[in-house]
Formats: sequence, structure tokens, C-alpha cells
Amino acid sequence: MKKINFSAGPAILPASVLKQASAAVENLDGSGLSILEISHRSDAFDAVLLEAEQLVRELLNVGDDYGVLFLSGGASSQFFMTAMNLLNPEETAGYLDTGSWSAKAIKEAKHFGKVNVIASSKESNYNHIPREYTIPEGLKYVHLTSNNTIFGTQFKEWPETDLPLVADMSSDILSRRIPLEKFGIIYAGAQKNLGPAGATLVIVRKDLLGKVQRNLPSMLDYRVHIDGGSTFNTPPVYPIYVMMLTLRWIKEQGGLEGMEKLNERKAKLLYDEIDRNPKFRGTVADEQSRSLMNVTFVCTDEADTDAFLAAAEAAGCDGITGHRSVGGFRASIYNSMPYEGVETLVRVMREFE
Amino acid sequence: MKKINFSAGPAILPASVLKQASAAVENLDGSGLSILEISHRSDAFDAVLLEAEQLVRELLNVGDDYGVLFLSGGASSQFFMTAMNLLNPEETAGYLDTGSWSAKAIKEAKHFGKVNVIASSKESNYNHIPREYTIPEGLKYVHLTSNNTIFGTQFKEWPETDLPLVADMSSDILSRRIPLEKFGIIYAGAQKNLGPAGATLVIVRKDLLGKVQRNLPSMLDYRVHIDGGSTFNTPPVYPIYVMMLTLRWIKEQGGLEGMEKLNERKAKLLYDEIDRNPKFRGTVADEQSRSLMNVTFVCTDEADTDAFLAAAEAAGCDGITGHRSVGGFRASIYNSMPYEGVETLVRVMREFE
Repeated sequence: MKKINFSAGPAILPASVLKQASAAVENLDGSGLSILEISHRSDAFDAVLLEAEQLVRELLNVGDDYGVLFLSGGASSQFFMTAMNLLNPEETAGYLDTGSWSAKAIKEAKHFGKVNVIASSKESNYNHIPREYTIPEGLKYVHLTSNNTIFGTQFKEWPETDLPLVADMSSDILSRRIPLEKFGIIYAGAQKNLGPAGATLVIVRKDLLGKVQRNLPSMLDYRVHIDGGSTFNTPPVYPIYVMMLTLRWIKEQGGLEGMEKLNERKAKLLYDEIDRNPKFRGTVADEQSRSLMNVTFVCTDEADTDAFLAAAEAAGCDGITGHRSVGGFRASIYNSMPYEGVETLVRVMREFE
Repeated sequence: MKKINFSAGPAILPASVLKQASAAVENLDGSGLSILEISHRSDAFDAVLLEAEQLVRELLNVGDDYGVLFLSGGASSQFFMTAMNLLNPEETAGYLDTGSWSAKAIKEAKHFGKVNVIASSKESNYNHIPREYTIPEGLKYVHLTSNNTIFGTQFKEWPETDLPLVADMSSDILSRRIPLEKFGIIYAGAQKNLGPAGATLVIVRKDLLGKVQRNLPSMLDYRVHIDGGSTFNTPPVYPIYVMMLTLRWIKEQGGLEGMEKLNERKAKLLYDEIDRNPKFRGTVADEQSRSLMNVTFVCTDEADTDAFLAAAEAAGCDGITGHRSVGGFRASIYNSMPYEGVETLVRVMREFE
């Protein structure tokens, strides 16, 4: 039985993407070669990279003032690379602390400059997105995690500031429309909304670069990758290929407007059931902070937990166990999760009631 | 027609590996999930990582005094990470300069410490491996590129020194037996002898770590990845999976002894033909420097070049164009290249004569 994958990441991919991705491993578009063994400087891979970049630019409305990079190393590498490329030792960046990933970004940025934590929801176990805070003068940029996989919260309104935002969008990239011009850097590990693990999308405003004094190793300098068109070194060919297939699929679904509508419908279906069904309770404190990507909830009676997990798994729902920091359940319903997948989970919840 | 892939990298993989790698993208071992969408913390991926590590340890005879890591970022990231983790600013490392990749390693190491280029074959366009040189006192380590893809040269004897060797083995890893105890760090991008692009094998002697004063970002600190069992962050799941399949295949071929015999037979077949056939000439200056992995040669009469290329391609031989720094042809005959593939190329050379 094909399972319905509610994992937080690496996460579900569209069935049509998996089918093409599987075929290309044996024979890429009838070339007689596997996608796993073609040169990263071949015409075939040039076309993949070009299409992936064009799709990102088209879907997010990214102009030539930004570089679009396909790197490796995940968001964890971007935690330090953003600060390393933007922040001199005596300069300060503002950070919004909304979960474990924000905390890691803060820790790594401190290797390269000063960090001012503008707001944090840590005291309430990150159960909401802070909305009352003042952004002080003199910051270089403001960093945020747009969606928090562990705690099921998501920014719905962006900070009111003229400073460039630097955003880890790993878990909600391309799930909705965004005002691109507010962002200096957007980065995202592919393995939630974009593709398999092993590739990282970085969108960076070029005029922010080249202003730090430090000496950067080539692989850590965004400018080197912009100049090299993401092939300064051998990039992760297959993860980028599958990302390109997923980008194509997103476009076919009506682009970001289409994804946004679908994601809102899926989230409403599940949150409505959590709020209606006396057996369950959401863990996020305020409705406006609720994530459309990771829906976190617990059994009202903790003793029901194992029984509900067993019922969900029997219906083919995989990966719904909550993170240990929150407990209970987490249904990750990224772009590629079909509406029918959420319907199945809601049906199990109703039957359980 | 299935082509015979002589590309320098990303490169050929065993047909049986590609078949399993393709099937797992649709359904991993009957789990109902794709290898592209499983969690990197799932039991299924734990088993993949464990088997990959055990195979590396078994094949190369690696003891517990070494960490075995599966990272991303390629050898290009290791150029600076090795120096960043081993070398204080006032300390000096020795580098053997045998080609473009050595030169890049030298450039990146200089960000973190002093570099003494002990020997170089640059003056003769890197057409041999230097053998007459003295290793000065007081170095922290000696770095070398064990095989030079562009120039078709390879170390057959290792430097005589008690210093730890740090080796970029991207293009001949697991192609032959090596005296592991001589090495402090071995690193290799997967995409030549180990698997697809996107994963990097690093084998590091633990007692060398923790001796630099600098503050390392987590993702750049080998100790963090050793402690995290290569899952400090989300690793490149699929490239590691395919690497594991390739490691299994290498073991099935008789391990390194088996690979060594096969690689010697393949190289002998091709070099013998280059030396015998008046239409061709090898580009490496001395026989002892000739690479068993990348066989570089030119047409004796340059005017024959296009015609021979056309004849080879008509026979299904793909990717034999030489690097622009050397010209002519380069047949990369890594582990996964079957003997019959080399026979086909040799047959074309004979017919061309």
C-alpha cells in the first residue's frame, strides 16, 4: 500500500514527480545515460539548471537584481553563510526567535558579528509568533524563520521595516505569495516543499554582497556561486533535477496562487476538525500564528495518544508523531500533500471520536 | 542504445546499482515510501547510513580511531575544511602540487594557515607526479591529490613521511588498496568512484581534531558531524543511499583487491593500445605517473581528432573529449566501468588505425 507521508521532512513529493524521477535514474529523456551519471557541464544538465532557475524567478517574481543559487549543505549551512557574507564583526543583525531553527541561526551568526534578539516566544515554548516588538536602529538585516516545523507556527505578516529581511523559508517556500522586495536573502533546504534532501535554494540580493571585510573561502562566498551559475563546483545534480520537476509541478498547479489556495483549503479542513472534535486540541496559542504547513495537535486525554496513532497508521497515515519538544501529533501538509491525504486523516479523527 | 560513459565525473555507475536506485525512488524496499521522501531519522535511513559506514570501514580497513562521515559540499568544501580544522594561522602545511585540484586546495588552505608547496609539476603542465623532493621539518600535515583527473596522473607511491597525509581521493577512492595508517584525512566527492554527485566521503583521524584555536561554525567542524553520526543536519539522503549501493557492489567485486585487479587490467588494455597504435600518443611523461582512472591521449596527427571522436561516439563511447588544458582525449575508466567498455573503445582505436 502506498502510504500518505505526513513527515516533517524529508517529506512527500508529488506522485508524478517521483515517477519521472525514477525513470530518469535508468535513462534520462532517452539519452541512453542515467541522470546520476551525466556531467554537470553537459547540455542536459545545463538545461535542467536553467529551467529550475527560470521557474524560481517566474514563480516568485525574482528580478535580475537577485542571484538564484542551487547549493548544498542545507539551511544549516545558510545559518552561518548569511552572517558570514553580510555581517562585519562590529555590526549587528536583528533576529526573531520563533523556535529551535531560529535559535540555531542565532548561534551560528554569532561567529561573525553581533546579534540582537528583537523578539522571542521561547518563554511560552514557542507557541506563537511574536507580533509586538520594536526594531531598533542601526541593524544590518532582520533574520526570521518564516515557518516553524517543530512548533507549528508561521509568520503571516512580515516585520514592518525597510531593513532587508533574511529568511529561512525551508518549510514554507513556494507555498504562498510573498512580497519578494522585502527580502535580502531567502534560503530553503529543498526537502520539505521543493524536492529531496541534498539541495538548497538561495535567493540573494546582489547589492548586499561584497561589503564584509573578511576573507571568504570560495565555496562560502555567494558571489563565487553567482558568477559560476551554481556550477563553481559539482552541484548535487540529482536533487536539483528533482527540484526542477517539483517546480514544474508547482507551476502546473497554478503557481503560488494555486498552491496558496490549496494549502489554505487543506489547513482549514484539518484545523476545523481539531477545533470541532472534542478528542483533540491544537497546540498553537493564537489562530493567527497557526502554520499552514505543520499542524500540531494533541489528544485532549493524553491516554488516547497511542490508540489514535495506531488508527492513523492503520489508515496509511505515516509520520504524524509530534516532535518531542511538543508531543502529540504533527501533520505536515506541504505543497505536495494532496487534499485527499488530509481528508483521510480527518476521517480517521472522526472515526476515533 | 545504452551508452558507455567515459565521463570524468559525474561518472558511470554499475547497471545493477542504477536499477535498484531507480526502483527505490518509486518504492523503497516495499515500504510504500520513496527513498526521496523518507525522514533522515527513520529506521530505514539509519540502516542505510550504518551499512554505508560499515562498508567503508571494512573495505578500507578503517578502525575506531577514525570518523567516517557522509557530508555534502564536495571536495571543493574539503579544500578549506581540512585546513580550517587542522591548521592554526601561524602553522604550516606541506602541499604537493600535481594539478588544478591541488592548486585549488592550496589556494583555499591559505585562508587559514601557511602553505609550503613541497613539489610541483606545474612547469611541465602537470604531466607527471614529482618524485624527488624533501619534506621539511615542522609541517602540520602533507596534502596531496592522489589522482589527477585532468592530467591523467596518479600517485603510485606515497610520500615517505611520518606526518599525517591529507588526501583528496575523489577520483581514485576505493579503486585500489592503500596504507590507511599513513592518512590523517581522506576526502572524496562521490561522483567518480562512489556514487552520484551530492555526497562527500570524509575519513578523519579523530586525534588530529580540536587543536585549532579558531571558532568553527557547527557545520564546518568535523567533530560535530562525528558526534552527530553524519545527521547533525539533514544529510543528502539519496546520494548517500546510492553510495551505499555502490559500496555493496564494490564488496561483491572482491573488495579493493578485486577492484585493483580489474582496474589494472582495464588500464593495461587501453595504455597498451595507445603505445602500440601509431595513430595515438599518451600525454603523461613517465609510465609510473600514468593514472589507472583517467587515461589521457591525443592523436599523433591532430587532424585525426574529430574523425576519431566521431568514430568513438558512433560506437556508443560517450564523454571521451579531453579537458581543454590537455586537449585530445580522456577515457575515464573508474571502478564501475566494465572491462567490456574499454574493449569497445580499443576496438574503435584499432578500426581507426
